Amino acid sequence: MNLSEMNKEQLISFKNEVEALYNGFKSQSLSLNMARGNPCKEQLELSVGMLDVFDDGNFLSENGVDVRNYGMLDGIPEAKEFFSDMIGVQDDEIIIFGNSSLNAMFWTVQCAFNKGILGNTPWSKLDKVKFLCPVPGYDRHFKVTEFFGVEMINVPMTASGPDMDMVEKLVSEDEAIKGIWCVPQYSNPDGISYSDETVRRFANLKPAAKDFRIFWDNAYCIHHLTDDPKPILNILEEAKKVGNENIVYIYGSTSKVTFPGAGVAVMGASKANVEELRKYLGISIISYDKMNQLRHVKFFGTFANMQEHMKKHKAIIAPKFDLVCSTLEKEIAPLGIGEWTEPKGGYFVSFNALNGCAKRIVQLCAEAGVTLTGAGATFPYGVDPDDKNIRIAPTYPSIEDLGKALELFVISVKFASAEKLLAEMN
Amino acid sequence: MNLSEMNKEQLISFKNEVEALYNGFKSQSLSLNMARGNPCKEQLELSVGMLDVFDDGNFLSENGVDVRNYGMLDGIPEAKEFFSDMIGVQDDEIIIFGNSSLNAMFWTVQCAFNKGILGNTPWSKLDKVKFLCPVPGYDRHFKVTEFFGVEMINVPMTASGPDMDMVEKLVSEDEAIKGIWCVPQYSNPDGISYSDETVRRFANLKPAAKDFRIFWDNAYCIHHLTDDPKPILNILEEAKKVGNENIVYIYGSTSKVTFPGAGVAVMGASKANVEELRKYLGISIISYDKMNQLRHVKFFGTFANMQEHMKKHKAIIAPKFDLVCSTLEKEIAPLGIGEWTEPKGGYFVSFNALNGCAKRIVQLCAEAGVTLTGAGATFPYGVDPDDKNIRIAPTYPSIEDLGKALELFVISVKFASAEKLLAEMN
Repeated sequence: MNLSEMNKEQLISFKNEVEALYNGFKSQSLSLNMARGNPCKEQLELSVGMLDVFDDGNFLSENGVDVRNYGMLDGIPEAKEFFSDMIGVQDDEIIIFGNSSLNAMFWTVQCAFNKGILGNTPWSKLDKVKFLCPVPGYDRHFKVTEFFGVEMINVPMTASGPDMDMVEKLVSEDEAIKGIWCVPQYSNPDGISYSDETVRRFANLKPAAKDFRIFWDNAYCIHHLTDDPKPILNILEEAKKVGNENIVYIYGSTSKVTFPGAGVAVMGASKANVEELRKYLGISIISYDKMNQLRHVKFFGTFANMQEHMKKHKAIIAPKFDLVCSTLEKEIAPLGIGEWTEPKGGYFVSFNALNGCAKRIVQLCAEAGVTLTGAGATFPYGVDPDDKNIRIAPTYPSIEDLGKALELFVISVKFASAEKLLAEMN
Repeated sequence: MNLSEMNKEQLISFKNEVEALYNGFKSQSLSLNMARGNPCKEQLELSVGMLDVFDDGNFLSENGVDVRNYGMLDGIPEAKEFFSDMIGVQDDEIIIFGNSSLNAMFWTVQCAFNKGILGNTPWSKLDKVKFLCPVPGYDRHFKVTEFFGVEMINVPMTASGPDMDMVEKLVSEDEAIKGIWCVPQYSNPDGISYSDETVRRFANLKPAAKDFRIFWDNAYCIHHLTDDPKPILNILEEAKKVGNENIVYIYGSTSKVTFPGAGVAVMGASKANVEELRKYLGISIISYDKMNQLRHVKFFGTFANMQEHMKKHKAIIAPKFDLVCSTLEKEIAPLGIGEWTEPKGGYFVSFNALNGCAKRIVQLCAEAGVTLTGAGATFPYGVDPDDKNIRIAPTYPSIEDLGKALELFVISVKFASAEKLLAEMN
């Protein structure tokens, strides 16, 4: 029975039943963390062989440079070749960074603020800088722009990506809008892949600001949960077709391919963008960890092998996503108190509770020992106007722990929903 | 005979002899690079054992965190403990970064520009920001401040460190002066270690700007070339004594201890400074490479072991420094056409030619196949007002190649000096 159709008596009885279950859970003293999209131990083990690639004592990159020493600011040639396949750019359109694509994004925004982009005024010299933020989105993106004092404007996500009518209108009208955060494939947290039309409309944007950039964080480009993944359209290629190739900065990493703490992050962009950024990069670092670059290239050998490697990840984590969706389908769907995505890749299930319930659900879970991503985190400034979105990160816990956490989660959803509906009756 | 005492005829004859030698060198088609302070291959081999520390399959830090995964933003506990000894701070006064202390410095300056320091106005909002730059100094420091549009003021180095009378006067008078670049031990390029008095005067500075910071790049803190190294005074401890502990940011790294491309960089500062920077750090990265942190700690075990390890470096590179100094002593000293330092540590010999000769010497060497650090690089904006300073980096070449390069160098010095003295006669 749909919870909204219950009368007060039924609701009270429902709430009491759920509360008893909840209290039972509390006494179990659980301690589970589902706050972040962390790979689990079994996933980490998949790449341990990478640590042996130097057993032969050969530390030379293909151009003869000793990867242990300084040099090769923007990456060794074989890493450029290897990773350009991953993010869909040419070998001369890529910079290889350290272990963090977030750090690469932060640095790029910082360059725009302190130096400006391709001859335009540094953003720090402008009265106002605005970014479009498809919501729900990735909290760490929003924190970067918040750090720099950027005004963030929410843009709703649709099943095919951000609301492009709104994006096109806003960027064409307002020169203060300098960027947009995008996770184009298996978006964080919705798991939405941008449609071909959405990618084309991005590639064809005509922003009022010449230094507008699409921050295209393709974090999950090879992180499929199905056997027949549909690749998204290549935005740089589409942008080149219309002479708009400077509009996009593309990011990717192996944080969820090899090791989250010790992967390789990369950035792709037009030659003009890369040339400018390479110049700035030489000010902020001498070189990144080339040993780790070569570790990756030697371990995988080919991009095809890395794609095969991702299937091992899928085998470990797809059952966890299935458990989330089947549990919600069984426990929440009949009650009409929540909606969620069934992602075909990426790291999250995005759950929308009844309006005004997300914070309460996260609180209930926390008090019973399960840490979820903070409610509101998926919105700029941490403010979800409907207080409804919760990001579920199922990869880290064991399937047993995940089952328990989900049991608590659905009880908490039920509890908070009953509370809300009862409050509305008073 | 001192070159300045020669008459025109003698000088012409001297120059012709030297020119013939120089042309002979040119025909050898040398290709040697002494531009940067790169360790040589034998030095890199000293740390290869570090790559085996995970052979036991144990990836847990002492607090139970899997170093392969996300987390531990400011470093694993054992790395904090280990490296705090290296830079002379407490475990809660340190942040462990990635592979580059330059990157940590760039990032810190960037934070000051975009967020401000401990509640003060962000530097990007000020009309003018100035830095004091002891000269000659490290070109990459100057490039960082140049990137941010900082006005750099030269401060002469003395045998005991920067001219402290000048430093004290300037910082007390001018609120726009926000920082100073220091390499306190075995300074780059002079190899000068700051005296106790200099360190104390730094610790006791009373700058007009509350957000003035000493950027204390202790890059060579354990990089001794003698058997009886004299440690410099601990600036943070001295500053604490007078309630001035927020005045200094301390940096260090293992770039020249293990691998230049894959070492560990650290920063030490007062708790207040570290707390603020840790907060900012969490915006720009999720975590640095903790596997590499643990590699270092496991490989060395104790700080004392790392100091022993440095003696192996000394054994490899001290003969190279000796060769530089003995060659200059033999070939240049009698002619009175140059002065140089005899460093007790660090990576460079600083050579001062006759005024107006440095660019010409570097050019002559380059045309005969030996690349030196560009003349002027040791000064802000690349401008050596006397055009006399040349940084010699002897560590990378083999002793044989270094011998050849030095032979060319002294010929070039003689050639350029004779040219100059002859030109002055006309």
